[in-house]
Formats: sequence, C-alpha cells, structure tokens
Amino acid sequence: MIVALSGGIGGAKLALGLSHLLPPDELLVVANTGDDFEHLGLSISPDVDTLTYALAGLDNQELGWGRRDESWAFMEALGSIGGETWFRLGDRDLALHVERTRRLRAGETLSAITADVARRLGVAPCILPMSDDPVRTRILSEGGWIDFQYWFVREQTRPLVRAIEFAGAALARPNPVLMAALRDRPRAVVICPSNPFISIEPILALPGLREAIAGCGAPVIAVSPIIAGQAVKGPTARMFQQAGVVPSAAAVAARYAGLLTHYVMEPGDDATGIEAAIIYAPTLMRGLEDKIALARAVLAAT
Amino acid sequence: MIVALSGGIGGAKLALGLSHLLPPDELLVVANTGDDFEHLGLSISPDVDTLTYALAGLDNQELGWGRRDESWAFMEALGSIGGETWFRLGDRDLALHVERTRRLRAGETLSAITADVARRLGVAPCILPMSDDPVRTRILSEGGWIDFQYWFVREQTRPLVRAIEFAGAALARPNPVLMAALRDRPRAVVICPSNPFISIEPILALPGLREAIAGCGAPVIAVSPIIAGQAVKGPTARMFQQAGVVPSAAAVAARYAGLLTHYVMEPGDDATGIEAAIIYAPTLMRGLEDKIALARAVLAAT
Repeated sequence: MIVALSGGIGGAKLALGLSHLLPPDELLVVANTGDDFEHLGLSISPDVDTLTYALAGLDNQELGWGRRDESWAFMEALGSIGGETWFRLGDRDLALHVERTRRLRAGETLSAITADVARRLGVAPCILPMSDDPVRTRILSEGGWIDFQYWFVREQTRPLVRAIEFAGAALARPNPVLMAALRDRPRAVVICPSNPFISIEPILALPGLREAIAGCGAPVIAVSPIIAGQAVKGPTARMFQQAGVVPSAAAVAARYAGLLTHYVMEPGDDATGIEAAIIYAPTLMRGLEDKIALARAVLAAT
Repeated sequence: MIVALSGGIGGAKLALGLSHLLPPDELLVVANTGDDFEHLGLSISPDVDTLTYALAGLDNQELGWGRRDESWAFMEALGSIGGETWFRLGDRDLALHVERTRRLRAGETLSAITADVARRLGVAPCILPMSDDPVRTRILSEGGWIDFQYWFVREQTRPLVRAIEFAGAALARPNPVLMAALRDRPRAVVICPSNPFISIEPILALPGLREAIAGCGAPVIAVSPIIAGQAVKGPTARMFQQAGVVPSAAAVAARYAGLLTHYVMEPGDDATGIEAAIIYAPTLMRGLEDKIALARAVLAAT
C-alpha cells in the first residue's frame, strides 16, 4: 500500500498521478481535515473534496477548487437576500456540502460519507479523512486567533501569521484505517507537495502519527511544493518568510526532519542540508503526463 | 388593515392583486406554515416562499412554486451522489432555505427572517408566518400518518386521505402581530382562494384564532378556490371527494361556517346554503389584471 498524505490542489495532482500507476487497493490518500469548517450551517471539507473531484475527473482546473463546469446561481441569490458570499460555493459543489452535512447530523462518519460519495462518483482509490474527529486549523495574526478559512479565503491570506494551532488535534483519533495501513508495513508513505504548515502538519499533529510513520519500516518520500524559492500555488513561500525562514525545498524538508528517507525536488534546486536521499525530478505538474511522471519518480524510490 | 390568510399559489395571486390596490402598511398577508418541513437538513417554508416570490415578482409561474428563471444544477449533482431528489429545490431557491436555516439555528424567528428577506427582495406588504412555533400538517392514509410533503410531493397526493392533523397547533402561539391586527379592528379579514383543508385550516387551528377572527368586528370575506366543482390547482376537489363531500364553492364555505360575512364565488356556481353575503366575481386569476379585479371585488365588500 502507498499511503499518501495530502492537502488540496498540489496533493491532488500527485494523487491523480499515483492513481494512474497503482491498482486502486494499493493507494490510500489521506486528506487533511484541518481546514474543514462550518459555514452557512454546512460542513465543508475542502481538501477531501478537492481530492474527490480530482480523482473523479470533476475538478475545476481553472479555479483549483470546486467542480468543473460550475454555475453560481446559488451564490448570486444568497447575496441578494443578505447572506455571506465570501466563501464561494458552486451550485453543483453545494450538493456535496448539503448531503454531507445531513449525513453527519444523522450520525455517519466523515470517512463513511467520503467513501460513499467517492464510489458514486467513480473514484477507485480510497480517500481517507485523517480523522473523523474535528481538527480545526487556526491562525494567530494581529487581530487574534481566527479560523483558517477566514484567514485563507475571506482575508485572502493577507494577515501576518504569528502562530498556527490545530485545535482538537491532541484529542483527535487518527483514522484507524490509516493507522492499520501504517502497521501493515506499507510500500511507502508519500508526503505530497502540499503546504507543510497548513496541509501536512495538521495530519502529523494527530497523536501517534509521526511515530507510526517513522516506525512503519517503509520509505517516507516527500515531494517539495517549492520550486526555485516559489510556491506553485498558495501562501507556502510567504508563510516561510513570515516565520523568518527563506523559502526553499530544503526549508520544507526541514519541517519533516526525522521522518524522511527520500526527498523529491526540482532539478537545480539546492539540496544542501537535507537529511534524505535526494531524487531530482520535475515537480511542476501541468498536464496529466506531468502528474504521472512525478508519481513514477516517487514510486521509483520504493 | 386587510388581514389576508393564505396558502401557496392561489392565495399568492390574490395577495398580489391586493398589493396593487392597498398601501403596503394596510396589507398583512398571513402565511400557512403547516406545510413547512425539514428536508436535507434545511428548513423549508413553501407557502411563505411562494408569497415572498410572488410579491417580489420572482415567482415561477409555470411551476407554481419556486423562482422564475431557475436552474437545477444542485439537484442534478445531489442525485449523482445519492441524495434525495423527490423534493426539487432550484439553485436560486436553495439560497433562501440555506440562509433561513442558518438564521433559525442562530436563534432568529421565522417572522424576522421572512420580513428581512422580503425587504431585501423589494416586497412592501408584510408577509407574516402564522406562528413562529412549529406546526406540521400530517396526513393519515392507508400506511399510517405521514408528513405533509411526503404525501403532497413525494406521493403526488395519491394516497387516500383518511384524516389530517396539525401537529403542534394546539401549543403554537399565533403570531402576535396577527393577533394585534385582529384586535385593532381591521378593515377586513380575507380568506384567500386556498385549499381549506391544508392551507387555511392549519391557520384557523391556532389557539384563539377562530375566536379572534369572529370577534374582530370586521367583514370576513372568503374567496372560493372551487370553480364549477373543480379546483383551479391542487388536490382540493379530490380531498372533498375523499371526505364524502361533493366539491363545490358551497362545500368550501361550509368549512368556514360561523366565520364568514361575505363569500366571493364564480358567477354561475350554486350558492345554496351558504350563510354569508354572496359576491359573484370571476375567480380564475390568469394575468395580473384578473388578480387586481378579484382583489377589487373583495375590497368592495369592506
């Protein structure tokens, strides 16, 4: 089994590449749920959904989130009656939030709902929320602590990040399917090219998870989300700067110190100080071919 | 003040006619909430919404419910992930259900939310839910008691109606704005051409309401929803038949026995036995002119 830890868009691209190279029962994609939140009375799981849509071939590649061929009649009508419109939910995407919320309230787990929706949308590999217990990433900026999506979407990542916490993580149970896969000697653990601070570290913050990965006896292969000091997408590079660290592939690797056996990074980037076997491979994934090629480079280390 | 008691489409047509003849602060439209229900985790108030959309000029005249120029991307996506699709919610209409549900959970009353939404959509007269406490119309048919919308929409009114109950009505407080309007000697109470069994009687079932209407000192004017033994829309005629009563304008008037001072009915229909002053006027409302003409006939009795 390949156990891949993933945030949203970057991780979903690599997961899609992996899904083209592996039988479905040999790929377990673990989704960060730290950026889940409740909005408009709905339970929203952005990374779970980005993975689901990407693996179903339904992802909106222009936006990098939500569904392709989306329409926005709901948001427009919501605005006209005074509702909050800063977090945009497309008409089709909304169906998943409404149905998930209904099923969560009826007592189903996020894992069970995610698996059922993925099956109905034709996704073969397992997409696994990191935990069925709530973990909520929160950001400390000038004005105090705010929920992640308020910082990420409403404030467009503008407020300076002074600290990050994963509320609930200390008491959350890591998904038992994930723990079983790690105990069962996986072929590899892959840390996808996602933002370390807000996509991967919420997963690693779950009790016992770092230890389970370190002790699983398999290669642990991370892929750098930083190319030539820049993030492909999102605030990764800026978050390093705000932490007083020059953004680089090596800076990302340092966040995973003690875990990595292999590190996949862009040819030409500086590997000085990275305590893992370095694999140089093109990490910018534009088309499907790029995704499969990067997945192949990752699997070659296993 | 004209106090108009209304269900959905038929009542909304007359309310729209009245709104063209009266200053906004002289028209209070009281909406049945007995067919409200919780579906997909959302609080849905069909008659409140039909009135709101009709008075805002946003109503879907082909369907007779929901919004005009509606799209259905949400429903289609919901079906694709296994959600329930028998109660159709359009993308634009959905915004109102999501926002109302959020505001109800935050502790606002249905009255306050309804007033705010109406104001934002440009509705001038007051649309008033009959109560802010839940009343739920239930239908006894062969298989036992079912919630109204399951009978009305999912089962398309096919199951034989053996009995109707308004669960919660005995403990529900009639809207205080309605009670104040009745105490304040209104110009008239108008019972709109709605289904008596499921649109008007849930309102009249509220504690003290029949007495307040009978004692308000104003004309009480009902408009027949039956023309030549047929309902303009919906199951009204069939419900009389199932109760062993021949459907007619007079049969409707008999449901309001003791309340009416005036009864507006289609020219040519039989008024035998109706204990109210009869006003013959065309009651089929196709265009806006018909609605205004019928409203004028009603107001002429005041």
